[in-house]
Amino acid sequence: MSGVNTGESSAVSAIQKSKSGTKTFCISVIGATGAVGREVVQLLEKRNFPISQLRLFSSERSAGEKFKFCGQTLEARIVDREALTGSDYAILCVDAAMSRALAPMLAELKIVTVDNSSAFRTDPAIPLVVPEINGELLKGKPLLVANPNCTTIVSLMIAAPLHRVAHLERMTACSYQAVSGAGLAGMHELESQARAWAAGEKVTGQLFPRPILFNVFPHNSPRQSDGSNEEEHKLVCESRRILGHEKLRVSATCVRVPTLRAHAVALHLEFINALSPTQALDILTRAPGVRVVNEANGDQPADPQMVSGLDEVLVSRIRVDHGGSPGKSLALWAVGDQLLKGAALNAVQIVELLIAD
Amino acid sequence: MSGVNTGESSAVSAIQKSKSGTKTFCISVIGATGAVGREVVQLLEKRNFPISQLRLFSSERSAGEKFKFCGQTLEARIVDREALTGSDYAILCVDAAMSRALAPMLAELKIVTVDNSSAFRTDPAIPLVVPEINGELLKGKPLLVANPNCTTIVSLMIAAPLHRVAHLERMTACSYQAVSGAGLAGMHELESQARAWAAGEKVTGQLFPRPILFNVFPHNSPRQSDGSNEEEHKLVCESRRILGHEKLRVSATCVRVPTLRAHAVALHLEFINALSPTQALDILTRAPGVRVVNEANGDQPADPQMVSGLDEVLVSRIRVDHGGSPGKSLALWAVGDQLLKGAALNAVQIVELLIAD
Repeated sequence: MSGVNTGESSAVSAIQKSKSGTKTFCISVIGATGAVGREVVQLLEKRNFPISQLRLFSSERSAGEKFKFCGQTLEARIVDREALTGSDYAILCVDAAMSRALAPMLAELKIVTVDNSSAFRTDPAIPLVVPEINGELLKGKPLLVANPNCTTIVSLMIAAPLHRVAHLERMTACSYQAVSGAGLAGMHELESQARAWAAGEKVTGQLFPRPILFNVFPHNSPRQSDGSNEEEHKLVCESRRILGHEKLRVSATCVRVPTLRAHAVALHLEFINALSPTQALDILTRAPGVRVVNEANGDQPADPQMVSGLDEVLVSRIRVDHGGSPGKSLALWAVGDQLLKGAALNAVQIVELLIAD
Repeated sequence: MSGVNTGESSAVSAIQKSKSGTKTFCISVIGATGAVGREVVQLLEKRNFPISQLRLFSSERSAGEKFKFCGQTLEARIVDREALTGSDYAILCVDAAMSRALAPMLAELKIVTVDNSSAFRTDPAIPLVVPEINGELLKGKPLLVANPNCTTIVSLMIAAPLHRVAHLERMTACSYQAVSGAGLAGMHELESQARAWAAGEKVTGQLFPRPILFNVFPHNSPRQSDGSNEEEHKLVCESRRILGHEKLRVSATCVRVPTLRAHAVALHLEFINALSPTQALDILTRAPGVRVVNEANGDQPADPQMVSGLDEVLVSRIRVDHGGSPGKSLALWAVGDQLLKGAALNAVQIVELLIAD
C-alpha cells in the first residue's frame, strides 16, 4: 500500500488518463509538509509532471496532513521501507541527518533520489546539480543527486552564464536571506513577532537566537573553525563544485533579514577576460531561468517580494564594479525565490531531466 | 531674541552655573525636529556640552515643537538671520539643498558650522571629518566642516584603524541600512506598514518606492550614470577623502532593510601588508569608538538592535577572507547606530574637538 489515501486509485487513473501515451512515474516526496516539500507537490501538479502515483511522507508530528493534488486529496504518512517500495523517484526535503539515515534504504530499493539537504553535497561521487549549469552530469544516470544550497543556486544562476564567457576568477557574495530558509517555522516566527509588536507585546524568538523582526544578523548556521558560518562555507565549496572550478576565489557573508521568502545576493564578480555591463546584460537576457529587470528601462531593481512565487532568478543593477580589475569586474543584484529555484524547483527540474534523458 | 522659549534666561543660568569656570558657547541646531537633530539635542545634554544658550530651529511645519533640555523647555523656531546672530556654532541637520542655502549666511555671521548633509562633502576646501580618523583637520579652525555619510562612518570606523597598520588597498562594502536613514518618516513608514499588516490591511509605501516591511531593496537614492546609486557613490568618494587615500579601490552595494535604526555593513578588506584576524582583533580592541563583540567568547555577532542607542561602532566576525590575497584579506561585520556615530554623535564630537583646540 502506498502513501496516498483511499482516493488513490481514482487519482492515479485520472492523472494517467491525462498523460496517455507518455510514460508515467511513481514519485515519493519525503518531508512533504515542510516549506520545500509543499512547493515540490505544487510544482509537480503545475508542471504536469507525468505521475502515476504520488506518495507523500512526513515526520510523525505532521503525518495525516492532507494535500490537494490534481483534484484529489492525498495524505502524508510516516516513511517506511514498505511504503517507499516501488517508487521510481524520491525527492528528499528533510534535514541532512534524516537524508543520511534514509539514503541507504532508498539506494537498496533502487529509487533514484534527489536530496535537498547538505548531506551529500561535498561527496565527489554524488553529482551536485543545477540543470541550467551542469545538467550534463545527469547523463550518467546517478542513483543519488544532491540539490545545492539555496543562496548558491541564486548566485550561480547569474554568475555561471557570465563565467562561461569571461571565466570567473573571484566572486564576492553578500546575502540577504529570507526566514523561510529556516522552513515554515521561520516564516511563522517572523509573522508572530510582527503581530506581537503591533499588539504592543514583547517580541521574543524561539527558532532564531534573537528577534528577526526589525533586525538583521549573520546567518545562524554553525560557526566554522575559520570564523565563517556554515552557510558561507556551503557557498564557497558548492560554487566551486558546480562550476567545476576548484580555484574559484569566493568571499562570502551570509545574513538573515526579515523577509518571508526569496533570497537577495549582492554579487561583486571579477573575471579573467574583459566583460562589460552591456555584454553581461546580453548574456543574462538569453540565459535560461534568468530574468533581467533593467533599471535603464525605468523598472525598479528586483526585490524579494517581486520574485516570490516566480521560477526565474531576477537580476538587476548590472554595472561596472569600480573596485575590481578595470574592464573585468561587475557588480550585480540577484534575487530568487529560494523555496522554488533555490530548492523545490531545482529538485523537480533534476527529476525532469533524469526522465527525459 | 534667540530661538529658545521664555524660560531661556533661567535655563541658561542653570547650565552656566553647572559649568562655572569653563567657557560656554551658544549653539544653534538647525533641523532640530528631525531624526538626527533630536539626537544632537539629547547628546548635547548627555555629554554635558558647555552651553550658554541652545537655539533650536526647524521647518515652518515643525516650528513650535517643544524640547526638554537640561530641565528646561525649549521651542523650535523658524530659522532666520536675526535668530542665528550671536551663535558660536551651528549644527545643520537639514537636507543638502537647505544646507547650501543657509551656508553663506552662517559664514557671514562667522558661525562655525558642522553640516550633516552631503552638500559640501566633496568640496576639497571643506574638511570631511571623523574625529577618530582625521580629527587633525580641525586644527586649521575651519568655519565649515562636513559630517560624512552614515554608512561611510560605520565602515571606516572599522577599516581606518586597520588601514593605519596594514594599508588598505581595497574595500568591498555591502550595507544593510535602517529606514531611519530616511529620517523619522522612514521609521514611521516601517512601523505603520507592520501595524497595517498585523491588522490584515494592505501594506503600502509613501516615502519608499515600495513596501519595506518584509522586504529589502537597493538603496533608493538617485541612480548615477554608472549604475551605482548615490549612497554607493558617497561611500566611494568619502572613504577616499577621509582616509586621504585617493587610490583606494571601493566596491559598494547599498541596500535598505526593514530595521528601524543602525546600519550593518559586511566588509571585505584587502591590505598591502599582511594582517591576521588576531592582529586585527588586537587593533580594533584598542581603537577609540569601536567595541569588539567576539563570538570566540560566546557572544552573538553584533546586530542593529544591539547597537541602537550606543555610541560605539560594534565589530564582529573578524575572520580571514579566503577569497582575497592570502594573508592580507579580512572579512568583518560592522554595525553602528547611524543616527549617533553615523550622524549626530560625529557632529557633536567635531564641535567638541573644535572648542577643545
